[in-house]
Amino acid sequence: MDDRIHEHAETLVDWSARIEPGDDVVLSVAEGAHDLAVAVAEALGDRGANVVTTYASDEISRAYLRAHAGDFETPAHELALYERADSVLFLGGGRNTFATADVDGETRQAAARANQPVKEARMATDWVSTVHPTRSLAQQAGMSYEAYQDFVYDAVLRDWESLAEEMAELKDVLDEGSDVRLVGEDTDLTMSIEGRTAVNSAASVAYDSHNLPSGEVFTAPYATEGEVVFDVPMTISGARVGGVWLRFEDGRVTDFSAESGEETIADLLDTDEGARRLGELGIGMNRGIDRVTDNILFDEKMGDTVHLALGRAYDACLPEGEAGNDSAVHVDLITDVSENSRLEVDGEVVQRNGRFRWEDGFESGV
Amino acid sequence: MDDRIHEHAETLVDWSARIEPGDDVVLSVAEGAHDLAVAVAEALGDRGANVVTTYASDEISRAYLRAHAGDFETPAHELALYERADSVLFLGGGRNTFATADVDGETRQAAARANQPVKEARMATDWVSTVHPTRSLAQQAGMSYEAYQDFVYDAVLRDWESLAEEMAELKDVLDEGSDVRLVGEDTDLTMSIEGRTAVNSAASVAYDSHNLPSGEVFTAPYATEGEVVFDVPMTISGARVGGVWLRFEDGRVTDFSAESGEETIADLLDTDEGARRLGELGIGMNRGIDRVTDNILFDEKMGDTVHLALGRAYDACLPEGEAGNDSAVHVDLITDVSENSRLEVDGEVVQRNGRFRWEDGFESGV
Repeated sequence: MDDRIHEHAETLVDWSARIEPGDDVVLSVAEGAHDLAVAVAEALGDRGANVVTTYASDEISRAYLRAHAGDFETPAHELALYERADSVLFLGGGRNTFATADVDGETRQAAARANQPVKEARMATDWVSTVHPTRSLAQQAGMSYEAYQDFVYDAVLRDWESLAEEMAELKDVLDEGSDVRLVGEDTDLTMSIEGRTAVNSAASVAYDSHNLPSGEVFTAPYATEGEVVFDVPMTISGARVGGVWLRFEDGRVTDFSAESGEETIADLLDTDEGARRLGELGIGMNRGIDRVTDNILFDEKMGDTVHLALGRAYDACLPEGEAGNDSAVHVDLITDVSENSRLEVDGEVVQRNGRFRWEDGFESGV
Repeated sequence: MDDRIHEHAETLVDWSARIEPGDDVVLSVAEGAHDLAVAVAEALGDRGANVVTTYASDEISRAYLRAHAGDFETPAHELALYERADSVLFLGGGRNTFATADVDGETRQAAARANQPVKEARMATDWVSTVHPTRSLAQQAGMSYEAYQDFVYDAVLRDWESLAEEMAELKDVLDEGSDVRLVGEDTDLTMSIEGRTAVNSAASVAYDSHNLPSGEVFTAPYATEGEVVFDVPMTISGARVGGVWLRFEDGRVTDFSAESGEETIADLLDTDEGARRLGELGIGMNRGIDRVTDNILFDEKMGDTVHLALGRAYDACLPEGEAGNDSAVHVDLITDVSENSRLEVDGEVVQRNGRFRWEDGFESGV
């Protein structure tokens, strides 16, 4: 077995999930994640955790959902499992990213509604989501299998402790700041972040961060004004989307266009009122991720990118008792900030052309 | 997908497990059983059951067990899952029957002890165990993959309703009878079955039968006297065993020999006092099983065979409140009764050379 699979497993178990002896862990294994699951099981055995292994097969889900009449119930046994679990480790990595493409949306939504209590019980644990590199994901990324493996391990096997320290600097700037301005070619956007708390997403439950890899600092903006272009292409609801332009007035999208997938953006904005407002401003800081692979787990953390999400805001960014933007959706759109770009907080440049002000090569002055 | 996989799935869900709408089902999928799991998920969706899919991977178990220090606990979340489940469907079929061969016995036993409450919760459900034909199981059987698939489906896709009716005749004979005598070349064994209840093992929870395939009638004998030879070879605890001869006096094995694996039989008999006494007399009636494949799920149900188990008796055969033979083991040994053989109940021949007395070609007279 590739040594990096063992390193990935140990990073997941120790840095990300902080597994302790006696923890009741659910290990969720996608169709292609067997090898990582073996390595994770070894680490969990060594740490003295208790494990239930579930099989997250898209092909099984498809067969079940297509055959079902649609009157779904909350499974009492599944709820009991997650209510008693301390941690859930999701090992993604399937064999076909379109395996459930022919399950209709209504069935999906009905199943998701019935499973909402199970989802909430899962999210109440110390859960962490990661992926094992599979041929299917390599294909989605437009890469060879070998190159994709290198890509995933470069993103996952970081010095997380030192990245967490660097990200803490940006978190402090955002926590103390009030007004953010993002400037680029065809982009000039201002947002308020006053009273909001940034999350140092350092790929560990100890930082309220549930993805491995991670490497972003994000907060929940409001009162957005201006224009922004998202030049990083992606797939949304099965459609290719690129060159998205949004105009905000009074915090709300009032005009938009897209070079491709314009109809998908229109549908997204029409989901509900919250889908026209921002739920997240995120700054990617994982320089191990050096290219777009059409997988949001990686793309949004890429160094030299900023993303904004239409829809729901994360509770962790909101003051106690305050409701942030609410929506059924949360869709991240990404912009490359490596050139002709600057990010200002309260009028001071924090990042220019991808360089942060505490880094070598940073050019000060607006 | 092979149509027979769908037929197998429907037999399992409808005939064997009697799944009803709203049932909370655990679907346990071995490493090689994915295709059967997809077909079973489709049937479960159609019947409106709720499903949790678990991954029963020997490689994951091995990695976990070998890394663990041995101080196992009962996993509270796993116990909660099975306590709330109505049915558990075990889909066997791995990729290597020796995948856990290098896990030491002490670790296995410690884990099994800690998991005993989980096992009991599972056994309290309407559980059914079956196997998907894999290349690994074909190899164990000494058969090609294609021929092994035919073998499995011949055994599983029976007219279970009519076999259940035929087996009911034998059950009546055993329930009403007191003394059983098995006679063959080098075999002459008598047992008492008075007061004991036979199980019509018709591959359905409706018959207290938890294996698919099944096709045997079994009861719990006692007061065994005489000699018996088991000429069907098998693997016990990883060792090949064949040509086993046992002498019983006062219900207890007092002498034994084996053409191969004699040490394994010696160890078995020394496990505990109950390991020297019979826990089961079973009569194989599944004529879809026409050869030995070194898999007890199939071998013991083979038509024209009789098996006797050393060790623990099944509660279903015992009068309310009566304890049967107790032991940590239950090991089936099989004898071919197709030639030079007869089975008598209270002095009347019930089966001769494989033919039952209600079948064409049966020769009466002792």
